[in-house]
Amino acid sequence: MDRFNYKNGELHIEQLPALKIIEEVGTACYVYSKNTFLDHLHKIQNAYAQLDTTVCYSIKACSNINILKFLSDSGSGFDIVSGGELFRAVKAGADMKKIVYAGVGKTDEEIKQALDAGIEYFNIESEQELENLIRLSSEKGCSAKAALRVNPDVDPKTHAYITTGKKESKFGVDIERAEKVFDTYSGNPSVKLRAIHIHLGSGGNTVDPYVEAIEKILGLIDTLRSKGYEIEALDIGGGYGADYVTGYGPSAKQYAEAIVPLLKDKNLKLILEPGKSIAANAGILLSEVQYVKQGGSKKFAIVDAAMNDMIRPSLYDAFHFIWPVKTDASFVPKHRNENMQMEGLEKYDVVGPICEGSDFLAKERLLPPLKRGDVIGLFTAGAYGFTMASNYNSRPMLPEVLVDGDDYTIIRKRQTYDDLISLEQ
Amino acid sequence: MDRFNYKNGELHIEQLPALKIIEEVGTACYVYSKNTFLDHLHKIQNAYAQLDTTVCYSIKACSNINILKFLSDSGSGFDIVSGGELFRAVKAGADMKKIVYAGVGKTDEEIKQALDAGIEYFNIESEQELENLIRLSSEKGCSAKAALRVNPDVDPKTHAYITTGKKESKFGVDIERAEKVFDTYSGNPSVKLRAIHIHLGSGGNTVDPYVEAIEKILGLIDTLRSKGYEIEALDIGGGYGADYVTGYGPSAKQYAEAIVPLLKDKNLKLILEPGKSIAANAGILLSEVQYVKQGGSKKFAIVDAAMNDMIRPSLYDAFHFIWPVKTDASFVPKHRNENMQMEGLEKYDVVGPICEGSDFLAKERLLPPLKRGDVIGLFTAGAYGFTMASNYNSRPMLPEVLVDGDDYTIIRKRQTYDDLISLEQ
Repeated sequence: MDRFNYKNGELHIEQLPALKIIEEVGTACYVYSKNTFLDHLHKIQNAYAQLDTTVCYSIKACSNINILKFLSDSGSGFDIVSGGELFRAVKAGADMKKIVYAGVGKTDEEIKQALDAGIEYFNIESEQELENLIRLSSEKGCSAKAALRVNPDVDPKTHAYITTGKKESKFGVDIERAEKVFDTYSGNPSVKLRAIHIHLGSGGNTVDPYVEAIEKILGLIDTLRSKGYEIEALDIGGGYGADYVTGYGPSAKQYAEAIVPLLKDKNLKLILEPGKSIAANAGILLSEVQYVKQGGSKKFAIVDAAMNDMIRPSLYDAFHFIWPVKTDASFVPKHRNENMQMEGLEKYDVVGPICEGSDFLAKERLLPPLKRGDVIGLFTAGAYGFTMASNYNSRPMLPEVLVDGDDYTIIRKRQTYDDLISLEQ
Repeated sequence: MDRFNYKNGELHIEQLPALKIIEEVGTACYVYSKNTFLDHLHKIQNAYAQLDTTVCYSIKACSNINILKFLSDSGSGFDIVSGGELFRAVKAGADMKKIVYAGVGKTDEEIKQALDAGIEYFNIESEQELENLIRLSSEKGCSAKAALRVNPDVDPKTHAYITTGKKESKFGVDIERAEKVFDTYSGNPSVKLRAIHIHLGSGGNTVDPYVEAIEKILGLIDTLRSKGYEIEALDIGGGYGADYVTGYGPSAKQYAEAIVPLLKDKNLKLILEPGKSIAANAGILLSEVQYVKQGGSKKFAIVDAAMNDMIRPSLYDAFHFIWPVKTDASFVPKHRNENMQMEGLEKYDVVGPICEGSDFLAKERLLPPLKRGDVIGLFTAGAYGFTMASNYNSRPMLPEVLVDGDDYTIIRKRQTYDDLISLEQ
């Protein structure tokens, strides 16, 4: 699952005590485990090794260029969704032949930037976008490759906000319309429509929707091929679960055991876009308790991380396991879940310093007794944590730290007050 | 209400056509009207002129230092909630005797920074914070003034996320406990407890909760004074409504007509912390339609602003009026509300390019027919718009533009891709 473990009551990130990092870096901060990232990447690469597979790590989950670099060095391609993410991939030295570009609102500037970079596939979300890509590609006199994003109309049974593959969504084209798109555009010389892309949404914890969607899409691919259209690749997107609680997400192996048999001997390159399943369990948000207070019948632990640093609890009602990084032997957690059963726990709302009720990290959470100065870890924070951070309340963005074995590097400096206003003068 | 009006089918911000700004600045961008800010400030100052009143504009609503400067020049003080906001106030040349500092999680560094700056009141949210302030103030050998934040336990009847004055909240101390806090701390030489602070939450559209809360608090102040405690000021916080739809929020005059009589002859300085009621209607988010597409039975207008630029619709389910900035005479809006009644409107989901379902600005909204290239305005975007922006999907933060009459200034430059990674190298 990850390399965050307690030894003698102290949380270690790989071989390094979390408190050791705090001494230099201070709180709050994001800390990542390099080898957890790599473990997850390798597990996926190995699970699908029987097929011609490219793993395209989804940059939006956690996008620090230092992380992209070592993922790229380990054979990862990238799923990008903006010109900014393409810029990051280029800076990280990514192989452009392993880049797929999704996103419903690609601007002309972004498309030109991607044509210049020579990325592998544009994932096309609408006919209008495809016509725009054809126009820009032919103006440049180049030839791009595209995957048509098709909505298989399958419900991944997750939060409505992170469901993306249903019919009435802004993404892709309906499966009924896909054939017509190929009829109209497949002969175009400026944009070669050569692949199908699907994406069900995020955070599903079952393989069933993937199986259902892939079966539907293979039917479509058969039809398209029977009409003479060349389909070389299937991009099955991301959304694979992560272990927000111990054992929550199916393993890469479990996904692959269901998916690989469907695609064997289909003469299709497989593209995967995992984000959360690689990054989530590879990161933690460390934060210090500033005050503990009683408000009505509730007890609040006010910490120095806030919704601007980690918005998932308030935006998605997401659960993140929280625990002090140093604790008595009796409170060392043997697993992570929503209801820890131990003698002597107390119920807290864990909240940040921001002046609104939505600024919480956990509500009514049973935790070991907390006091001012305690450092807590918010686990599984590697995905959609720092990348969604804002400067709300004029709070500088946090530093990011990368642990490798018993060593660490600050891979993003803490923002200063001067940084906050540098574009305003 | 504001200075955003259509002339000959074109939206003007003060005297300037919105499209004129776009020519140079591009989309998406935030545009503010300086004189709308000042109108709102002056209306509040005038409405409470009978009392000894300090208006402390709430920086978190819209915090560009150029805006803080002209508000300060017009007599505004500031409500701050972090060291970053204090830094902004100092840069804007604010009068430190008009600064109040709220926030449940003030760090030692932030408290020292505020002691050094010599702000007027620390708004105290818990006994533990008060003790910490006493410790730090006495270590420095200085004397600070404080207001105790008291929860009047009144429901402002707004979104649960922006309700802050109820009993079971992380903010302030319960009214029953307030007297005890004075008993314990009022003689302290390092921190002089001289005021009461209340804050009901944000976005209420009725004066009643203010009246109810102030009456409760005046009872408390009587009790405190009868025990010999000196109370010089009452800070009644913010949360005054803005015109998200035409005529929604009570005017400053209406609030004052209910509040001023309660406080006359009470020998109390009055502090107000308006944010939204000054800033919301003074800003607009301009954005260009990239694609219009059909998805199932829905029509989507995909624009180049997204949830990372404006998170209020997805986070709070907030309504913002949206309309094209250039339109036929028949579609010129005479007011702004949720259901515009005109012949020929079409229903759209207005969404951004971000890869998740939560990225929307409006759902099932009746609008004039939209096409690629149209520029739309998202109105009442001046408060909690830019200040909550993130770099999610590696999207650079937008520029901010200030209009004054028929002229404009870029008061914050658009972030570049290089800015995104400048702290990562």
